[in-house]
Formats: sequence, structure tokens, C-alpha cells
Amino acid sequence: MSFLDPQEQLARIKFGAVDVLSEADLVRKLKRSKDKNQPLRIKFGADPTRPDIHLGHTVVINKLKTFQDLGHRILFLIGDFTAMIGDPSGKNATRPILSREEIEENAKTYAKQIFKILDPEKTEIVYNSTWMDKFSAADFIRLASQYTVARMIERDDFTKRYKSNTPIAIHEFLYPLTQGYDSVALKSDMELGGTDQKFNLLVGRDIQPAYGQEAQCILTMPILEGLDGVNKMSKSLDNYISVVDSPKDMFGKTMRVSDELMFRYYELLTEISGTELDRMKFEMGEGRLHPRTLKVQLAKYLVARFHSSAAADQAEEEFNRIFVDKGLPDDVPEYPVVPDKGVALTALMVRTGLAASNGEAQRLITGGGVQIDGEKIGDARLKIDLEAGRAFVLKAGKKKFVKIVVS
Amino acid sequence: MSFLDPQEQLARIKFGAVDVLSEADLVRKLKRSKDKNQPLRIKFGADPTRPDIHLGHTVVINKLKTFQDLGHRILFLIGDFTAMIGDPSGKNATRPILSREEIEENAKTYAKQIFKILDPEKTEIVYNSTWMDKFSAADFIRLASQYTVARMIERDDFTKRYKSNTPIAIHEFLYPLTQGYDSVALKSDMELGGTDQKFNLLVGRDIQPAYGQEAQCILTMPILEGLDGVNKMSKSLDNYISVVDSPKDMFGKTMRVSDELMFRYYELLTEISGTELDRMKFEMGEGRLHPRTLKVQLAKYLVARFHSSAAADQAEEEFNRIFVDKGLPDDVPEYPVVPDKGVALTALMVRTGLAASNGEAQRLITGGGVQIDGEKIGDARLKIDLEAGRAFVLKAGKKKFVKIVVS
Repeated sequence: MSFLDPQEQLARIKFGAVDVLSEADLVRKLKRSKDKNQPLRIKFGADPTRPDIHLGHTVVINKLKTFQDLGHRILFLIGDFTAMIGDPSGKNATRPILSREEIEENAKTYAKQIFKILDPEKTEIVYNSTWMDKFSAADFIRLASQYTVARMIERDDFTKRYKSNTPIAIHEFLYPLTQGYDSVALKSDMELGGTDQKFNLLVGRDIQPAYGQEAQCILTMPILEGLDGVNKMSKSLDNYISVVDSPKDMFGKTMRVSDELMFRYYELLTEISGTELDRMKFEMGEGRLHPRTLKVQLAKYLVARFHSSAAADQAEEEFNRIFVDKGLPDDVPEYPVVPDKGVALTALMVRTGLAASNGEAQRLITGGGVQIDGEKIGDARLKIDLEAGRAFVLKAGKKKFVKIVVS
Repeated sequence: MSFLDPQEQLARIKFGAVDVLSEADLVRKLKRSKDKNQPLRIKFGADPTRPDIHLGHTVVINKLKTFQDLGHRILFLIGDFTAMIGDPSGKNATRPILSREEIEENAKTYAKQIFKILDPEKTEIVYNSTWMDKFSAADFIRLASQYTVARMIERDDFTKRYKSNTPIAIHEFLYPLTQGYDSVALKSDMELGGTDQKFNLLVGRDIQPAYGQEAQCILTMPILEGLDGVNKMSKSLDNYISVVDSPKDMFGKTMRVSDELMFRYYELLTEISGTELDRMKFEMGEGRLHPRTLKVQLAKYLVARFHSSAAADQAEEEFNRIFVDKGLPDDVPEYPVVPDKGVALTALMVRTGLAASNGEAQRLITGGGVQIDGEKIGDARLKIDLEAGRAFVLKAGKKKFVKIVVS
């Protein structure tokens, strides 16, 4: 293939990115790549301890896709060496130790998910144990000689911990170094990550010259806010949309984000241009476009991307059936419950505040005022199986709704 | 053999030491050693980049001898692993990189010198490359997880450099850790070093428990002052007595130390008791003992220790012949010259200020007023070969002396 003009490539690469360091180096690399008709080597390090990808992760993966579309090669790095060591001090629970089998399993899960976005043909999945398992103690000392203590402490979280006397174990300095060495082993031209990874990406850039290599460029993408619109999207905060969420969940979660967050998601999760985004904001401001219309469009885009167009249409229909046609608001309050079997509907109505007592619940049901997902319920003795993952809307009377979410 | 009572051993171990950490632990170890009739494992790390041992080094080696006399086992560690890496950042010239052959050679030189003090039968020479060459990157990370950054920065020199923004490369943190791991590999019960090594010795003590071992005790000995009485004895300051100095040099250098320094040398270099030392000081203060007598005794002790009693007697005689019998003061000024061949005696006399001109020098020689090492010189055309290492006293007239030192 022949590559686009470096400046054209640069414009597409920069769109939505926070940092590109340095632009001049990148243009030089792009130019050389075009001249020699040789793709750039684009590194991305994945955390093999968390194989479930949510939309937050896809912000960077989308940018990898851009590089791929521009003809470059993606090196998708599974950091299995570090994952198999974990945190030997045992103080950091976020670094679980994984077995070789678990890593293989996670890598497969990972691959399945990223290939919903990336082209497998242009993606190389690599494992850093390939070179780190052969790394000797002497190699490690040589690597560590390339970086200073002061510079490492400059990393945001280290600075805070050092100043507050929160212990930093010395091996924590070694992890960014091995990550930097991965760039050497991969002959990386460019590394991508979230803004929270900027320091680590720079270590690679700093270390390569000591090994006789040209320094990689780095590109950081913004961190995506979760459904709450405030915190980083994360599994532990339960404010995420997973790329393997069901079409129904993906659609429903998207419909419930704020208007502001909707635009942010358009910006970071779709291929929409800046001009198009401005147009949508303007038309919505003028009252010519209803936010719901834009949300449906976003929700369908996401479902289509991670499932299929048919699934997107179906999810829309189902959503309309439950919420729009039955006059449900989009923002039904959620009520989380634990899995259980044969729970009396009346008891559930009392628990969720839809009825003041079992007696009132029975009266409401027999009076025909109770619906589950838009279907009227006639049996006041109905027992419900609350299966994990299930969610349904319970309506009592004309104005009381609650969404039961079993988790 | 049967071991002495732990408290008796402790008294001999502590004599002259600066720190013993902890005494309680040491007593426990000594007691168990006696009960099980099993010697303690005493570690001492030698720097294989500097195989020439001077008296400064022997302060600790003498203490090792004490342990040996008490029946314990000396593990004389050659840090060849680190010596073969050196300082990969290239910034620290004091860490030259040695080849395997140079290390072997240095180790031999080292052994030859220490066995003037230690009993080879009770000394095991070990190389840390034995275990460090097999150390993997993962092993290194596990090791580094046992120590905190803050604690490492507490080391005196690191604190100073960190505060003054003098770069500390990260591998400099790894060296004390490998040194600490050596204690694990050796199952060390106790490690000895100079006071400047205290921090490094403590790393071993801190790390062993993480590997399921009892923590080693540590013992530090004072740093010996050099011949100037002010600075640490060191080769680079040229204020040292080497254990391989000739009997004549060893004797002569000792005779020229200050009275104060003489007592310090008695304390740290001989096996004299505290009581005996006090007696000498008292008698000298009373005028009953001449300082020269005590210096001769010290000088003979040292020559006898590192050469032989006969050599000590001979050195004393020669010293007397040149200095005492000929009325030379002990503190003849030294004049350093570079090696050369066929240098005219007259020229040398002018250069060193013994004569104002060649003519005056000739007149002094032919008049019988010039001596070399107490021998009268009659030939005004005498040429002298200034061979490296040679030293001799040149006397002109009754009151002018200079010691020519070729280096």
C-alpha cells in the first residue's frame, strides 16, 4: 500500500489526543515510513489481569484502529511477565498473581474483544515474558542504570506517596523500567496509552536511545468518564459499559447518560468529526434536535459496533416497547437485588417502595395496576426468579416505576 | 572443639568495635552455636577491584581473626558479580569493570594478603557470581520488593545526593540489595565491615527474614586514619601502609606517625588490651617511656606480622644505622622524584636544595660532606639510577637532609 501524506496522517492521529510527543519526531517517522513504504510499529500495553474491556479502554483502541487504517502495524503487548510476578510485597491487591493458564485465557478474552475494533491481520499479539524471562540480573542492573531515582519519583503517584511517607517498594521502580524495555525489545516507533500512562510511556522514550534505538513517540488519549459523568469509567465503580454487555444493556445504559456526557461519548467513542459534533450541539441548542434522538443514534452506533446492526435495531425496538410506548421515563430509578428464587412479587413491591404493605401490593395487582416490562400482571401470588444479570422494570399505578437489577 | 562461654566471646568480639547489632541476638546465636557445637557463619565482603590491602583494611580482618580464634567460620566474599558489571551508567569511575581473569588474579592477590592474618583452613572464599549469575529478572523484582525507596534514600550518601539534586541512578539501589541477598545465599549469621558499611550490612539483616532466615547480626569497626592522622587511610591519598610494603618502608612509615596516631594504631592494629594501652599512655606521660621506644615496638610488631621477626629486627637495625647512629632525625623531609637513569648526584643535590649550584655540590662531595643512607660518597661524578620504589636519605654537611622517594 502507499501511505498518506505525513501531515494528513498527523491530523487524523492528533484528533482527540491529549499529548503527542513529539510532533516533530512523529512527522519525521511518518515521512520515513512513507519513503521506505514501511509501516510504523505501534505499541500498546494491555493489562492481562483485567481482560474485560469496557468503553473506557476502547478510547485508546479506537486510536490504534486509526493507525491501522493508516497502514501501520499494531503490537498488542500482553504484560504477562509482570502479571506472573504480581506484587511480591503483597501490599498491592490490584496486582494479582496470575498463572500461565490464566494469562492465556485472559489474552484470548482480550483478543476476542479488541478484534471487534482492530483488524487481526494487522495486529501482532506479543508477550513480554518472551524477552523478560531471559533477562539476567546483570541485564536488569544495566537497565536500571539508565534512569535516575529523582526522575522516577517525579511520577505523580510516587511523588504523593513519597511526600506522605507512604512506602514505595523498590520493585515498583523496576516495573516502569521493564515496561520501557519492552519498547526496546519491540523496536517501538510509537506507544499509545491513557493520560494516566504518560509517565510510563515516556520511560520507554527515554530508555531506547541507551540501547542504540531511536526514541519512540508517545500519544495519550483522554480518560473516559463513567456513566455517572464524574468518575473514570471503571469496573470497580460499576459505572461502565462493557464491550460484551448485551445489546439491551448497552442500549439502556447509553440512553441514561446525561446530555453532556453523550457528547463526550460521541467525541471519544465514535468516528464523528469535530464539525459534525458542533453541528449536533448547535441544533440541539436551537431545539431542532431532541437529545433522545441523539442518544438513540449513539446507543445504536455502539450496539452495532460491538454486536450488529440487527441487534441495534432490535435493542431500539425493545427499548421503545418498554419505555417509550408505555410512557416510561428514560431514567427509571434502579434497585439492585441479589439473586434469589421464588420471590413473591408482593414482597418485592414492598421492598422497593412501590407498595406500603403486602395488602396494598395485592390490591394493586388484582386491580390491574402492576406491570413487568410493560406486561400487565394479574396473579397476586406470582413468584419471580431473580437470576443474576436479569433486569426488568416494575411499574405500580401510573407514576411509580423501579428497575430491578439482579447482580 | 568446644566454644567459649558466650559472654566471654562477646567481650572479645566487642573490643574495639563501634556497633554490634544487636547484642542480644548475637548472644543468642553464640549460645546456640555452643549448644549445638556448630560454628557461626561470619560474612565479610571484599571489593575485588582493589586487591591491595593496606592496614586500614586489616582493622576488620583482625576482627575476623578474633572470630576465627573463637572457632567460627569466615566466609570471605569476593563481589565478582558486581565487579563484572561495574557502573553501567559510566558515571562512577570508582567502579571499574573487571574481566573474569582480572577478578581471579585479584582474588589470588587478596587471598595471599589476608592469609597473613587469617587461617586459610577456617576461611572459605566465595564468589557472589555463583548465585547472582543464576538470578532471574523475576528474582530481582522479588528481592527489590523487600525494601522501600525511602529507606534506601536514608543511606547517608544517597540522602546528600538526593537533597543536592546529584543524580542517583536506580541501579545504585540494586547493589546494596544484591549485597543483602548475598547474606541470604550464604546463610550469614553475622557480617563485618567498616562503619562506612553499616547501612549495607543492615540491608542483609533486613532482607534475610523475607527469605525465611534469621536476621544476621552486624558488627562495624572504626575507619583507620592514614599517616597524616586526619584522613581515612587510602591508596588514593597516598597516606597508607600496605601489607605488602617492604619491611624498610613499613618500619619507616610507622616511625614517622604522630604520638597520638601511634596509640590509635596500637588500639586498632595490634592485639593489645585496653589496660595495657592505658599503661603505655600513662608511662609516656610520666616521661618514663620515650615515644620512640613505643613506635619502634609498634613498627617491629607490624613488620613481624606481615613479614617475619627476622625482618623486623633487620628493619630496626637498618633504621638505626641510617637515622639514629648517624644522628638523623626521624622526620627527614621527603622529596618525590620520578624514575630516571644516570642522574648526576650534583644535579640531584641542586634540585633538592642541598646545594646552591653544581659547583657547591662538587665541593661538598670532594670535601667528604655528602652521604647516601649513611655511606660517605667520594665521587663527585657519581650517577644514580632512580628506580621506581627506591628511597634513600641524602645528607649534605651536618644539618641538611632529604629523603629521595622515587615513585
